Amino acid sequence: MILEDTITDLAVKAKRGSFSLMSVSSEKKNRVLLNVARLLLEKKDFIQEENKKDIDSGKKAGLSAAMLDRLTLTDDVIDSMVSGLKEICALPDPVGKIDSLVKRPNGLMVGRMSVPLGVVAMIYESRPNVTIDAAALCLKAGNAVILRGGSEAINSNIALATILQTALDSQQIDTNVVQVIPVTDRQAVNHLLTLEDQIDLVIPRGGEGLIRFVTKNSNIPVLKHYKGVCHIYVDKDADLEKAVPVIINSKTDRPGVCNALEGLLIHKDIAGEFLPVIAEELNRKHVEMLGCRKSAAISSLVKTASEDNWGTEFLDLILCIKVVDNFEGAKDYIRQYSSQHTESILTENYTTAQRFVAEIDASAVMVNASTRFNDGGQLGLGAEIGISTTKLHAYGPMGLKELTTRKFVVYGQGQVRN
Amino acid sequence: MILEDTITDLAVKAKRGSFSLMSVSSEKKNRVLLNVARLLLEKKDFIQEENKKDIDSGKKAGLSAAMLDRLTLTDDVIDSMVSGLKEICALPDPVGKIDSLVKRPNGLMVGRMSVPLGVVAMIYESRPNVTIDAAALCLKAGNAVILRGGSEAINSNIALATILQTALDSQQIDTNVVQVIPVTDRQAVNHLLTLEDQIDLVIPRGGEGLIRFVTKNSNIPVLKHYKGVCHIYVDKDADLEKAVPVIINSKTDRPGVCNALEGLLIHKDIAGEFLPVIAEELNRKHVEMLGCRKSAAISSLVKTASEDNWGTEFLDLILCIKVVDNFEGAKDYIRQYSSQHTESILTENYTTAQRFVAEIDASAVMVNASTRFNDGGQLGLGAEIGISTTKLHAYGPMGLKELTTRKFVVYGQGQVRN
Repeated sequence: MILEDTITDLAVKAKRGSFSLMSVSSEKKNRVLLNVARLLLEKKDFIQEENKKDIDSGKKAGLSAAMLDRLTLTDDVIDSMVSGLKEICALPDPVGKIDSLVKRPNGLMVGRMSVPLGVVAMIYESRPNVTIDAAALCLKAGNAVILRGGSEAINSNIALATILQTALDSQQIDTNVVQVIPVTDRQAVNHLLTLEDQIDLVIPRGGEGLIRFVTKNSNIPVLKHYKGVCHIYVDKDADLEKAVPVIINSKTDRPGVCNALEGLLIHKDIAGEFLPVIAEELNRKHVEMLGCRKSAAISSLVKTASEDNWGTEFLDLILCIKVVDNFEGAKDYIRQYSSQHTESILTENYTTAQRFVAEIDASAVMVNASTRFNDGGQLGLGAEIGISTTKLHAYGPMGLKELTTRKFVVYGQGQVRN
Repeated sequence: MILEDTITDLAVKAKRGSFSLMSVSSEKKNRVLLNVARLLLEKKDFIQEENKKDIDSGKKAGLSAAMLDRLTLTDDVIDSMVSGLKEICALPDPVGKIDSLVKRPNGLMVGRMSVPLGVVAMIYESRPNVTIDAAALCLKAGNAVILRGGSEAINSNIALATILQTALDSQQIDTNVVQVIPVTDRQAVNHLLTLEDQIDLVIPRGGEGLIRFVTKNSNIPVLKHYKGVCHIYVDKDADLEKAVPVIINSKTDRPGVCNALEGLLIHKDIAGEFLPVIAEELNRKHVEMLGCRKSAAISSLVKTASEDNWGTEFLDLILCIKVVDNFEGAKDYIRQYSSQHTESILTENYTTAQRFVAEIDASAVMVNASTRFNDGGQLGLGAEIGISTTKLHAYGPMGLKELTTRKFVVYGQGQVRN
């Protein structure tokens, strides 16, 4: 069978499997997840042997230490997969929920029921633990899932898929609901992205290159975020004592993640007082500061930024700093450079806070809080499958609910339309 | 300026305009809509003169009578545009609403606020009234709109856009929030569909060809429905007296629209009794019936269908009829041929009804009701901008709410993440 046919066949099977999932009970889905958790521990040796094949090939192929690190399924990584599964198991099943039924003038009862999307394709890089996390979230939301991990993790991913399928089989669920693309050709992805009759959603997770490639080539809806260029605006009415820990936490808690702070905007009226203080604290945390001329003039710890520093996702201990004239100046800057991920204002002024919340366009808009809170777990969604910075379907962290859609349900008594 | 630059420029202006719309009050938006309504009547002569240019060119180009009919802005069509505007005006403003704020363990207050999508591009055929309907809905939801109507309606659309912009100007709103593509080249659409940094959503309305073209070529999320192949399943436990008017209404009320009935499934246990009755009634309404061998054997009014009749969107007084063995048979048929638009069951059996609601995948699933109710107005959404049969973001009729998204809002008191 040629490659395209193999991929189509696998997607058709996933679609068919997804129908059977529609009527699987929550208890049964949860039993599958707990079985996966158990099997991950029981089959740890097998998983790590398969993983070692990938690591060895990776070393030969000259993967960077960081890449090899992300690829490695240590005991700790496996333990965190297990606890992730237990968390997902504990979340309420989103499927079948009807928030309200409204009675229309003609007596029809109309509501919207949460239902699975159908088939979700995950296209991701490096980390094989995504295989388990993504499959578990998709299954809990009643979706079949097609997994296409990085070619460097192919043996690990196939091993993990075997475990998923064993767990499904133990509950008499069609094992076709979890599919792993068994080949590493780019061509397979190209073809996958054309199968709009079989696949309902594509979620790419990885570098901006991968995400742009998927978006450009997909006929299927895509949920994605390109990058996280998050800002904090310290207003003239900020409580400067609160401001320091929030900025330090946003920038230095985990500088390599998408909700880390990349740009700090400071109102000119307080810059003289506040900038030396925060620069000192950031410097103590080894943060390199690149600023506008005004900020560099106020603190010698701030180097002058070049034009292309603004709006950069450094993912490192580097921070852009700009002194702005007022709220409008901060808003203009954010509109120009924001990636619409997370934007936070520090202020005690009621009106300024409410204007920021209303007028700033980002998946999460915050007042007096660390940008690090833009995360499914922190915002109360439970486990997340990614953070969307595009606005269709989901804007911000995507949890179980975002892996469902809502259909209209109409209960009638023989009504006709006049 | 070359064409691509013109289109990009217009999209950039729309995006900038969309920011200013974020803080325009509901009162002001409503005043714009009422001004448009007033101007449509005041400038009726001008509109109809411009429309006549399109009709004359259309006649020369040999457009069909149906096409010319859809193109013509009669007094009645203008009146219905006016009443449409008043309806949209009366709907609650979706923007700025936060359904609930939840308190997290660390004291953060977290909610989701409805906000405009930004810029919506409408790509549609023939009917110039869509220009007003679509622009009004987009504006009410706080979105800028880029309108690309059919080339055959270019003069009408430009005239209507002038009216929209006059009304915006009268309320000191940036007129860039309504853009009409002033050229008819296909190339303009091709380029438009690449502008993902400026445009947040594309809605194509028209034939399947247009919709497939847009889906294939767009980097921007697309909301669409390809076609409406709607079914009614008459269960063995149906109340056959209720069944007749529901089927007749579904099929004959407006056979040319997407929620009209195209396929009738009848449980074998009642086919002998019911099929002759319904065939008689359908025949009286001049409906041509194409059926399986069993149905043709039961009623001589039913002709034998060919394989390619199943799943066809006739948009005409033609109906496919099939006798099925049981609920599973109906479900399998619907899964194979449904366009996921509207599916209805007629039954008095509680369990069968609930299974149909849970297990059938369509944007609207109904019990004992005409398929004609799948419509924004009928389901209580108010005016609609289309019906989505894909599952991302919207599934079913799309009203004002579907023209917004929800961002996370976080009110803190200086919290940091541990």
